[in-house]
Amino acid sequence: MAVAGENLRINAERLWDSLMEMAKIGPGIAGGNNRQTVTDEDGEGRALFQSWCEAAGCSMGLDQMGNMFARREGTDPDALPVYVGSHLDTQPTGGKYDGVLGVLGGLEIVRTLNDLGIKTRHPIVVTNWTNEEGTRYAPAMLASGVFAGVHTQDWAYEREDAEGKAFGDELARIGWRGEEETGGRKMHAFFELHIEQGPILEAEGKDIGVVTHGQGLSWTQVTIEGKASHTGSTPMQMRKNAGLGMARVLELVEAIALSHAPDAVGAAGHMDIYPNSRNVIPGKAVFTVDLRSPNLDVIKDMENKLRLGASDICGQMGLSVSFEKVGGFDPVEFDEACVSAVRAAAERLGYSHRNLISGAGHDACWINRVAPTAMVMCPCVDGLSHNEAEEISPEWARAGADVLFHAVVETAEIVE
Amino acid sequence: MAVAGENLRINAERLWDSLMEMAKIGPGIAGGNNRQTVTDEDGEGRALFQSWCEAAGCSMGLDQMGNMFARREGTDPDALPVYVGSHLDTQPTGGKYDGVLGVLGGLEIVRTLNDLGIKTRHPIVVTNWTNEEGTRYAPAMLASGVFAGVHTQDWAYEREDAEGKAFGDELARIGWRGEEETGGRKMHAFFELHIEQGPILEAEGKDIGVVTHGQGLSWTQVTIEGKASHTGSTPMQMRKNAGLGMARVLELVEAIALSHAPDAVGAAGHMDIYPNSRNVIPGKAVFTVDLRSPNLDVIKDMENKLRLGASDICGQMGLSVSFEKVGGFDPVEFDEACVSAVRAAAERLGYSHRNLISGAGHDACWINRVAPTAMVMCPCVDGLSHNEAEEISPEWARAGADVLFHAVVETAEIVE
Repeated sequence: MAVAGENLRINAERLWDSLMEMAKIGPGIAGGNNRQTVTDEDGEGRALFQSWCEAAGCSMGLDQMGNMFARREGTDPDALPVYVGSHLDTQPTGGKYDGVLGVLGGLEIVRTLNDLGIKTRHPIVVTNWTNEEGTRYAPAMLASGVFAGVHTQDWAYEREDAEGKAFGDELARIGWRGEEETGGRKMHAFFELHIEQGPILEAEGKDIGVVTHGQGLSWTQVTIEGKASHTGSTPMQMRKNAGLGMARVLELVEAIALSHAPDAVGAAGHMDIYPNSRNVIPGKAVFTVDLRSPNLDVIKDMENKLRLGASDICGQMGLSVSFEKVGGFDPVEFDEACVSAVRAAAERLGYSHRNLISGAGHDACWINRVAPTAMVMCPCVDGLSHNEAEEISPEWARAGADVLFHAVVETAEIVE
Repeated sequence: MAVAGENLRINAERLWDSLMEMAKIGPGIAGGNNRQTVTDEDGEGRALFQSWCEAAGCSMGLDQMGNMFARREGTDPDALPVYVGSHLDTQPTGGKYDGVLGVLGGLEIVRTLNDLGIKTRHPIVVTNWTNEEGTRYAPAMLASGVFAGVHTQDWAYEREDAEGKAFGDELARIGWRGEEETGGRKMHAFFELHIEQGPILEAEGKDIGVVTHGQGLSWTQVTIEGKASHTGSTPMQMRKNAGLGMARVLELVEAIALSHAPDAVGAAGHMDIYPNSRNVIPGKAVFTVDLRSPNLDVIKDMENKLRLGASDICGQMGLSVSFEKVGGFDPVEFDEACVSAVRAAAERLGYSHRNLISGAGHDACWINRVAPTAMVMCPCVDGLSHNEAEEISPEWARAGADVLFHAVVETAEIVE
């Protein structure tokens, strides 16, 4: 067994070409992609990925959640595989790199190993997890969640999109519902390369984020009810303005997050008011407060402050308020050995790096429950993601994929 | 000439029956109505109204904006008509009384005069103004606005609904685009009965609102632009949260309105954030601030404070902000003689009353520019309007229509 030397590098041009080729499937309206999960476009993207994997000599596994597993054999029949991957599905107005870089970066490892005739003791399995984005079918990271035992498969199959189409039916319709039992695979380790989706690496001029933790997340949907009434004919003191109540709770969310700085963030990205008419005082506001921290106690404290504070605010305004926890996951601490492998790879290759806490949820956060896991991040322009204007440089992709490559092959063990 | 005696009353049961009959056309989903302007249902409502008017011996005029004029002749061929009416169109989730009470209250005057064999010197013309609500075709009060010279008819014809259908085309399609030139009619006076659409009369136990003024209105659409970014991976201090900027401007609007209490109101009923996704910090917020006062100087001061204050708030947050005035009208002072006729009618009939400032815009606000005008208001339950649950009692309708009746016939002059 040996570690790959610092001269070993992936083929960055081939990786970039593959990213651009995949981006042709499900083009967006503004330069990005709309290749949402279990659509025809998702099916087309999967077929392209499969053809590339097969051309690289891999066999393809497919489980009942549509998770794809492209396997390059190792030399030791008893060694568990090292898994590497991410997701090929996108937001409705998504970018070309979110998820895709992690899958094609995994494929590039196989291609590079093939080019160089390098064998590994452990098999390497490049994975495409189904429905990471969760936009067509909530929640996000659905299939890696089933794989890790977070959700049952039956529950996942029953999820419905806005048109009432069930996830399980749509997965079968596009032809990617496999036979293999979901979650039956044992992993030696799992690595995921992803763009940062935040501004820190670019702002600090770092090539690589070594992801030590995943932030925990709490989504609380807040419903404030007042009374819809005419904006002109309702005296100020007789109003029950649910929109103003929402505004005050948004200010509270900001204060709660700042009170835990720098270990917490909070905001509302989703807000709907009813009836949403220029001359009607909002009678109802529904919005989702997103609170995150790498510290579970902080999340619980913030949730508590939100409920107490919003109840106070609404009580004083004659509004009623209710809360529903609509999503969340606990903070994640990635595997020490895997994290070390990522850091060592960045060091060996001479890339500047820093530790990062992943602000977003990723498939790796679920897989960490069932296998030693770590993540590599590369910068993205302006921190922009979930946006068709999402952009990275070919150099950033190269650095991320090189570090992923070294971490994976160090873990999979090169056979001399 | 003589004033009607206090024993002269409209037939409240017949009025109520007609209200209920009209409400069968374009039923809503929750007990109210969806009879939006220039839809097939609007056409059906117009046909029913015309059949009633003709049964009451009126001739029907129809102008190029679809405004309907049902005329009961007077005895003096040189006397200008007294006009009375409101609108038959509703909000998409509207009530049964908003507008309709004013039209059918006018018709009830004609029916009552017929029953009693009373002649008036001035003709009486019951009017249905097209598109008061402005929900399918903005702005509100479109056809009375063209009548009063506020808008050109060509501009009105070109207004488009959400499907891109032009107002003028749809008016012709439903068969209610007349030949008569819009605005050519001269009026001796115009009276409009309307539900208050606010809570004051009910809260104070008053039967009648004598409307002395109409509040002026200013609609400023505010667009705040920040940067859409991931709720998890963007540090608090690097956020440009347009949703939080909106929240702070909403608080400012409240403060501005309260600083002019009790002569002003302010709120935002329309808010949209983009992309409106739970895990994306809002990159853009678009909302409309509705500011009203019976005093034009107050409106101008509030508009100014909004622009300055919102610019300050957004500047401090690294957000850009722009403003567009998307609607408005100056405060209205109704005609002194007409207002006195309304007040005298309430006194004569023994109904409790108080002066009101109309908080909402009404066709009467535009017609006041071209004819002596006044309005009568009756209470509505809980101040609720623009809502299918809008409700009034038959007694309130009776009182309002009685006062309208007396004000109109006093102005039209009973011939002994």
